[in-house]
Amino acid sequence: MIKNKIKISVPGFMANGISVGIKKQEQKDLGLIYSTIPAQVAAVFTKNTFKAAPLLINEERVKKGMAQAIITNSGCANAATGKEGYRDALIISDALSKQLKIREELVLLGSTGVIGKRLPVKKIENGIGKLVNGLNETGIEDAETAMMTTDKYPKIAVRRGVVGAKDITICGIAKGAGMIEPNMATLLTYVMTDALIDSRALNTVFHQVINSTFNSISVDGCMSTNDMAIIMANGLAGNNPLEKVQARLQRFRDMLTEVLMELCQAVVRDGEGATKFISIMVKGAKSKSEARSAAYAVANSNLVKTAFFGEDPNWGRVLAALGASGVNMDREKVSLNISDILVFSQNSPADFNHNKLRDAFKKDRIDIEVDLASGDKSYYVYTSDLSYDYVKINAEYST
Amino acid sequence: MIKNKIKISVPGFMANGISVGIKKQEQKDLGLIYSTIPAQVAAVFTKNTFKAAPLLINEERVKKGMAQAIITNSGCANAATGKEGYRDALIISDALSKQLKIREELVLLGSTGVIGKRLPVKKIENGIGKLVNGLNETGIEDAETAMMTTDKYPKIAVRRGVVGAKDITICGIAKGAGMIEPNMATLLTYVMTDALIDSRALNTVFHQVINSTFNSISVDGCMSTNDMAIIMANGLAGNNPLEKVQARLQRFRDMLTEVLMELCQAVVRDGEGATKFISIMVKGAKSKSEARSAAYAVANSNLVKTAFFGEDPNWGRVLAALGASGVNMDREKVSLNISDILVFSQNSPADFNHNKLRDAFKKDRIDIEVDLASGDKSYYVYTSDLSYDYVKINAEYST
Repeated sequence: MIKNKIKISVPGFMANGISVGIKKQEQKDLGLIYSTIPAQVAAVFTKNTFKAAPLLINEERVKKGMAQAIITNSGCANAATGKEGYRDALIISDALSKQLKIREELVLLGSTGVIGKRLPVKKIENGIGKLVNGLNETGIEDAETAMMTTDKYPKIAVRRGVVGAKDITICGIAKGAGMIEPNMATLLTYVMTDALIDSRALNTVFHQVINSTFNSISVDGCMSTNDMAIIMANGLAGNNPLEKVQARLQRFRDMLTEVLMELCQAVVRDGEGATKFISIMVKGAKSKSEARSAAYAVANSNLVKTAFFGEDPNWGRVLAALGASGVNMDREKVSLNISDILVFSQNSPADFNHNKLRDAFKKDRIDIEVDLASGDKSYYVYTSDLSYDYVKINAEYST
Repeated sequence: MIKNKIKISVPGFMANGISVGIKKQEQKDLGLIYSTIPAQVAAVFTKNTFKAAPLLINEERVKKGMAQAIITNSGCANAATGKEGYRDALIISDALSKQLKIREELVLLGSTGVIGKRLPVKKIENGIGKLVNGLNETGIEDAETAMMTTDKYPKIAVRRGVVGAKDITICGIAKGAGMIEPNMATLLTYVMTDALIDSRALNTVFHQVINSTFNSISVDGCMSTNDMAIIMANGLAGNNPLEKVQARLQRFRDMLTEVLMELCQAVVRDGEGATKFISIMVKGAKSKSEARSAAYAVANSNLVKTAFFGEDPNWGRVLAALGASGVNMDREKVSLNISDILVFSQNSPADFNHNKLRDAFKKDRIDIEVDLASGDKSYYVYTSDLSYDYVKINAEYST
C-alpha cells in the first residue's frame, strides 16, 4: 500500500532522487520524473494569489498539452521570490532540458519548503548531471522521497488493469502533511500512466478525480502557494485510445480515483501530528456547496480537532461548529451520528450510551455523519485531529 | 486594569457570585448582576444556529427594552438541550424573579460551559436564596469569577467621567478564553452603567462599539452557541439624557469603547494557551469586507499562529494565508510589515535585517501590517498564537 517492498515502475517512465545540499544532513532534496517520449499532460494548480514561480511557468507550458519531465526540489518553496525566483526556475528548466536533450517547454518544475527564500540555484544546477545520469525505471520512490518535507513516509499508490484491451499502469506519488486545504490540488501530486488517452479526455477526467479526492481533504485549513497535481500519460501501453464518453474511459477514471483516493487518505493519516483519521459526511443538504461548507466548518474547527485528539466525547463542539458554518439549517431537523451512534436529533441530545461514545473516540478512525434533512445533496471531507505534535512541527519549521 | 485591588462599584448595581456545585472543588459557578431599579437594556447575540436556551429567552425579553437582573452559571452551556433546556432556563428565571420580587421578564440568563448537557436545575434553584441575600455593591468581581471557565483571571474594566453634566460610571466584565470568533459578541460580556440614556441611542451605540471591539478579535475562529453581550443603563447618574446625535452621546461612546477595548484585549491576552498578542491590520483594501476577510485569513491560520508561538520568523506563512484568503489582490502592490520591519513588497522579499525580525518575533506583542494598495479601506483584528497549551486545554475540556 503506502510503502511497497517491491519496486514500482511504469512503462516508459524513469525517475531518480538525490541530495544536492538544499536540506540538511544529506537528505534527498532533488527529484526527477521523466517519460522516455513526450506525454499528454493535465494539471491543476493552487488558487493562492502568491503562487510559486515554478507554478507560474508550468501553467503556461501545460496549456500546450505535452510534457516530458518534472523536476522537484524540497527545502525551499521558491514562492514570494518575485522576478528573481522566476528567473531561478528558468535557469533550472534550461539546464535540465539541455541535459535531457528535450525541448525546454516539455520541462515542468515543482518546489516545496520554506516560503520567501531564494533557491540555491547553483547547488541544483551542479546536481542535474548526476540526477539525469541516475535515472532508472525503479527510481519512483527515490523521486518521491526527494520531495518530502515534514512527511513521515513516502506516499505511492499504483493500480494495474486491462483498459482498452491492454494492461495499463497508473502510479501516483504525493507529498504533503501540513498546509493541507486543497483548492485545486494538494501540495505535490504527480501521476504517471502509460495509458493512451486523448488530451481533452485526460484533462476532464483528471479535474473530476482531483475534485472527488484531493479536494475533499483538510489537515489544517491552510492552502499553500505551491499546491499542484500533474498527470503525464505517455501512451506506451498501446491500448485502444481513451476518448470522451466511453466505458473504457470510465474504467480508467475508476482506477485513477483509486490511486488518488489512496494517496489522499495517506496524506491525511500522515497529517502533521495526526493521531486520528476523521471522516465527515454531511448529507440532506439543499446544495452541494452548502454540504461542503458545513463539512469544512467541522473539519477545520480547532475545538473539534483537539477534542478528537484528547479522545474527549465532547460532541457539542461538532454541533457548535455546524451552527457557526453560516449554512442555513433547521435545528429541529438536524441529526448527528458519531461512529454510528446517534447523539443529537430533534434539537435535543439523543438517548445514547455514553461509554459507547467514549469508546468510539478512542478508535483510530472516527466517522461523523450529519443529516440536515433538507435536501438530497451530500459532501464528505477527510481530516485529522490537532495534536501537540502539530504545534511542535509547525513552531519549529523554518529554523 | 485587569485585576483591580480597589473594589469596583457602579451606582445602583449590586452583584454576587457563589458556588452551588455545578463546577468541581467549590469554585464559584453562579453569578448575579442586579440593578436596584429597572434599566434600559441592549444586547447582541451569537449567530450560531444552535443558540443556547438562555439566549433564546433573552432575545424575546430584550426586545421590550428593559431588564433588571442577569443570572449566569458556568460549568454547563445549556446549549443543544432542546425544549427541556428551555424549560430549565425558565424554571431558574421564575425562581429568581420571585426571590428578587421583580417581574420575570426583567430577568436575563446566561450559561457557559459544556454543550449538550442538561443544567443541574435543582442545585441552581437551591442556591438562588443565598445568591440574592449576598448581593452587595462591591460584588462585581465575584459575579465575574462565577462565570469563568478556562479563563486564567477575571476581566473587569471601568471608566468614570463627566457626561451630560454629571459623573457617570461604565463598568464591563467579560468571560472568555477559547471559542473566540465573535459574530455579534464574544462569549459573555456584561456592561453596567448609571448613565441616563435613551433606549434607541443605547441600542445603536452598543452595536457600534461591539462591532469595533469584540467583533475584531479571534482566538481560534470558533463561534460559540452562547456568545452574548448585554448592557444595562439604570439612569441613576441623573445626567442630562443621552440621545441621538449629541456631543455627550459621543463622549459616552468613547468611554464605552475604552471599556470594551480593554476587555477584548484582555480576552485575547488570556486566549487559551496564548503566549503572544498579535495585532493584524489590513489597509489599502477596496472594501472593509475585503480588508476583514484578509485580516481574518491571517488571524485564523494555524500555520501563522504556530510560527508565532515558536518565535519562528517564517513570514512567508503570513503571505500564504493572505493569498489563500479569496480576496482579489495584486501581488505586485501588496506589502507586508511585521513589527515595523518591511519584509515583502513589489512581489519580492524586502532587504531586511533577519536578526531584527527574529528579535521582533521574540516580543510579547507582534504587529502585522498588510497594505493591499488598492483602496482606502482598512480592518484590524487582534489574535493570539497557537500553543501546546491550547491543545492541552481543549483536549481535556469536557472530561
